[in-house]
Amino acid sequence: MSDIPYKVYLSEKEIPTQWYNVRADMKNKPAPLVNPGTGEPMKLEELFPVFCEELCRQEFDNENPYIDIPQEIQDFYKMYRPSPLVRAYCLEKALGTPAHIYYKFEGNNTSGSHKLNSAIAQAYYAKKQGLKGVTTETGAGQWGTALSMACAYLGLDCQVYMVKVSYEQKPFRREVMRTYGAKVTPSPSMETNIGRAINEQYPGTTGSLGCAISEAVEAATSQEGYRYVLGSVLNQVLLHQSVIGLEAKAALDKVGVKADMIIGCAGGGSNLGGLISPFVGQMLRGEADYEIIAVEPASCPSLTRGSYVYDFCDTGKVCPLAKMYTLGSGYIPAPNHAGGLRYHGMSPVISQLYDDKLISARSVKQTEVFEAAEMFARVEGILPAPESSHAIRVAIDEALKCKETGEEKNILFGLTGTGYFDMVAYQQYNDGTMSDYVPTDEEIAASLAQCPKF
Amino acid sequence: MSDIPYKVYLSEKEIPTQWYNVRADMKNKPAPLVNPGTGEPMKLEELFPVFCEELCRQEFDNENPYIDIPQEIQDFYKMYRPSPLVRAYCLEKALGTPAHIYYKFEGNNTSGSHKLNSAIAQAYYAKKQGLKGVTTETGAGQWGTALSMACAYLGLDCQVYMVKVSYEQKPFRREVMRTYGAKVTPSPSMETNIGRAINEQYPGTTGSLGCAISEAVEAATSQEGYRYVLGSVLNQVLLHQSVIGLEAKAALDKVGVKADMIIGCAGGGSNLGGLISPFVGQMLRGEADYEIIAVEPASCPSLTRGSYVYDFCDTGKVCPLAKMYTLGSGYIPAPNHAGGLRYHGMSPVISQLYDDKLISARSVKQTEVFEAAEMFARVEGILPAPESSHAIRVAIDEALKCKETGEEKNILFGLTGTGYFDMVAYQQYNDGTMSDYVPTDEEIAASLAQCPKF
Repeated sequence: MSDIPYKVYLSEKEIPTQWYNVRADMKNKPAPLVNPGTGEPMKLEELFPVFCEELCRQEFDNENPYIDIPQEIQDFYKMYRPSPLVRAYCLEKALGTPAHIYYKFEGNNTSGSHKLNSAIAQAYYAKKQGLKGVTTETGAGQWGTALSMACAYLGLDCQVYMVKVSYEQKPFRREVMRTYGAKVTPSPSMETNIGRAINEQYPGTTGSLGCAISEAVEAATSQEGYRYVLGSVLNQVLLHQSVIGLEAKAALDKVGVKADMIIGCAGGGSNLGGLISPFVGQMLRGEADYEIIAVEPASCPSLTRGSYVYDFCDTGKVCPLAKMYTLGSGYIPAPNHAGGLRYHGMSPVISQLYDDKLISARSVKQTEVFEAAEMFARVEGILPAPESSHAIRVAIDEALKCKETGEEKNILFGLTGTGYFDMVAYQQYNDGTMSDYVPTDEEIAASLAQCPKF
Repeated sequence: MSDIPYKVYLSEKEIPTQWYNVRADMKNKPAPLVNPGTGEPMKLEELFPVFCEELCRQEFDNENPYIDIPQEIQDFYKMYRPSPLVRAYCLEKALGTPAHIYYKFEGNNTSGSHKLNSAIAQAYYAKKQGLKGVTTETGAGQWGTALSMACAYLGLDCQVYMVKVSYEQKPFRREVMRTYGAKVTPSPSMETNIGRAINEQYPGTTGSLGCAISEAVEAATSQEGYRYVLGSVLNQVLLHQSVIGLEAKAALDKVGVKADMIIGCAGGGSNLGGLISPFVGQMLRGEADYEIIAVEPASCPSLTRGSYVYDFCDTGKVCPLAKMYTLGSGYIPAPNHAGGLRYHGMSPVISQLYDDKLISARSVKQTEVFEAAEMFARVEGILPAPESSHAIRVAIDEALKCKETGEEKNILFGLTGTGYFDMVAYQQYNDGTMSDYVPTDEEIAASLAQCPKF
């Protein structure tokens, strides 16, 4: 065994004091948000009624590579950061691989995931702007929990529209949010015009992320002193999440290791974008080279099977359009899909990097994902979130390839969170009742046909 | 703000390599286990059919102050230890107290509590003895989860008898254990003689810890290659849990802080015993003085309202007798009790220290406990286990006393785990449907009257 400890912790003083903005180093910038009414790029001020002003500025900032993290956010980060970089000695041994596997573990906080990194930032800027509260949507509940925690800390009101199927299937997630003082409403609800319209059009619908987004945006814009916040996809979110990659890189540097391969799960792209940012920055500046793999569910394959076009971000079509790899805003993963990462589109930053071939993508089936999750839980002692387990799957696959070739690759992956609130899915896997679904080409084509034309 | 970081981490090399055995420094040793048939102290060999041999030796060892931690266990500890010592800056600020509050957080592992510290030790010695597997009981499920994890790691079979009411109310805990490959049986079951007898005598019973212990012991002794293991109460468990206190003391020493007051929740005594051991050792050797407070639920007040007598450890009366502060082995907390710490008796070591007035005890009502839990969750960002929240309650009370007196006391408490699987109890609190129960003197007297006479 080498001298590298099981867990590489940075000191509190080594927590980043600036976020890294990869857009500043991108030659091809991510495409701008577009006004669906005019077809013109959104102006900064046009976003102010929906988003906090400072967050809008961050959203538009393609120039500044580093942005100071306000002291108050740094103080909050100290409650649960730095997160550990773990050398997966036990997994390596179980696989019999010569590869060296590292993972950046973001699950050691009550939100159970990396989402808290951006939640506290967005809540902070809302508070600073003098707002009363924020609205948002949540699917599995990680983002809603994170935002509830951040708002409780800052004394902001928090209103969460939770996809109805999750609200009913995950009462404990809901209860954690309530414990943090948030108001949680199943979506589609009867509290918004869009919710009522969707309920009327699709009686008995169990909701979707795109629909919950529409409701949350309407709730924000119809209440005095409220704005809408979002946990993924947006440029600002990837900016905040860069703390993951910055810490991971600092920890690897500390033990003198250069990653060969970086693997992250990808739904909207918040974790992947945050993890890879500083490494991609090096690639863009010609300082280093990495093989980067985005892993997505076979049942929601936006990068591997979607199109790179302008699309709606939400079902109600109230948000600006974004150019992204998308399956169409009406795309909803099959009901048997248990493993998170359900959003129909991919972050514009990730989409552009993928289109520029700086990163590759791979899709995996959920039973393979849970097989990897269970193995990981048993040998590494951490019960992973289904989302995170997509990355585990590919990390294991790559480590097994190294076993064949004898290569001692350094593999880094993002372990975004824990699966304590996902035991229904684990139960399906343990009971052998979990199945896979891969959409047909026709299904994807039909969904994509609904994208706006530009 | 002082120079002390939010989290004091030891390095991997500073994880203890020896457990500390406080019994070696105790003038009044804990009373020996007694054979219920003969009334004589148990001989070492008499325990071998039930417990692993090396663990029996540790159980009887009142002489050696330090016991080496085998390398394999040290390696496992590295996966989740050292655990952080946290300076509760945010809680101090919210309370406006001059006190300095520290907590040793044992919840950053998938078992969600400190139980893993002893689970891996007991599983290791079982493996080393060449056994096929181990049996145990679990109530809320923390111990069962921890043992499942340890057994999965070492490739041992794990059979868990889970109190039926928990089995039904906490399906996710059960599912985590299954994910780690354990067999989980609701207790009382129809698989053991004792289970069948209890089911016949009390049709529809939802079980108790004492009953599940009897079943697990019967299962161990009736299968070739199996032994019984226990997560609390026993001397060996407190020995293993001393890593908590050793690390806490090392971390405090590192930042030059001496605790004035040490607070821990107490059910069977595993966490409290582990946390306070090295500090009590100093007191016993005349090197330092601390105020130590054991906190127990008002609905299960073994220290504050029980008697210090020999009692049965289990309902089926198959285990040796232990001298302990007890409410009588038939005592079962009222059905509205949601907050853990349900065992009728207290570890013999803790009982003796309490009888010798080296530690004090306090009981708290569960609504007060959840009030403290919710405040803590909101300001410190960790959703605590109900058990741990007993200690939080008293830490807050003591910090508020300091606010009145202006004393800058250093308060250390044990945050044993997280509450992610206890959201039903949180929901009761959030909904305002949680109530308190304090047993009458008559109830306790009636239960104590059933203790054996010695």
